[in-house]
Amino acid sequence: MATIEYFFESVTPGAVLELGSVTVSAEEIIDFARKFDPQPFHIDPEAAAQSIFGGIIASGWHTCSLTMRLMVDKFLSRAASLGSPGVEQIRWLRPVRPGDTISARIIVLETRASQSKPDRGAVRMRTEVTNQHGELVMSMESTGLVGRRPAL
Amino acid sequence: MATIEYFFESVTPGAVLELGSVTVSAEEIIDFARKFDPQPFHIDPEAAAQSIFGGIIASGWHTCSLTMRLMVDKFLSRAASLGSPGVEQIRWLRPVRPGDTISARIIVLETRASQSKPDRGAVRMRTEVTNQHGELVMSMESTGLVGRRPAL
Repeated sequence: MATIEYFFESVTPGAVLELGSVTVSAEEIIDFARKFDPQPFHIDPEAAAQSIFGGIIASGWHTCSLTMRLMVDKFLSRAASLGSPGVEQIRWLRPVRPGDTISARIIVLETRASQSKPDRGAVRMRTEVTNQHGELVMSMESTGLVGRRPAL
Repeated sequence: MATIEYFFESVTPGAVLELGSVTVSAEEIIDFARKFDPQPFHIDPEAAAQSIFGGIIASGWHTCSLTMRLMVDKFLSRAASLGSPGVEQIRWLRPVRPGDTISARIIVLETRASQSKPDRGAVRMRTEVTNQHGELVMSMESTGLVGRRPAL
């Protein structure tokens, strides 16, 4: 089990966290979409080629899920994470295509200690996901709940 | 390939679409989370039992993805779907636990023909997901792009 390094007190508005990158294959895009989003432009290369997208693209939920994995690996696995109440906005700005490498970063927008639950605070953040061409493919604003540092 | 029955013109503000339901197992919850959201309360039953959640819960992204599958099966597979520009809000209101059966419905909030692209329109909708106890576990507001009925 990873050591907890990040508590609510560790998070500062304006901080930027680079989450690293991941490359997604056609097989992974199709596998995800067959399970969760089996629209032709996600699972059928021929139909996708004829669609407005001109070829297979990843489900937006796949992009969200890949980004979540980067967030867990680089940050939440070492944070006192208590889940999330929700997301304020997701923008799917450009397609993610087979072979694309997407990179994510978080910008901390606001931190707010909970009034009702003194053991935690809310962190509002913006997540930006770019492809290997430096183009923004997805942006998101969401809130995470993080435990406060225990008193010694 | 499914026949397209739903075009932009078929969608009316106020319309309610029942999307049916799906039961999620512990194995599916853990499998999804090992890939995309490997936080202890999603993948480790013992750690989850000690957490604020009292047991394994599904990743919020898994709930989104399961809901998307219901939406595709019941509606988008027969609609002139052109993808989505994004989501305005997601609220993860209650945990989804192993064995839970979640049901989804869509309420159409607003339809707007595109000014710049005469072949499509935007449909803003609210999605509500409830569990087998009738409790709301997730709500979402999102926009889908739908093709217009071709002229005969």
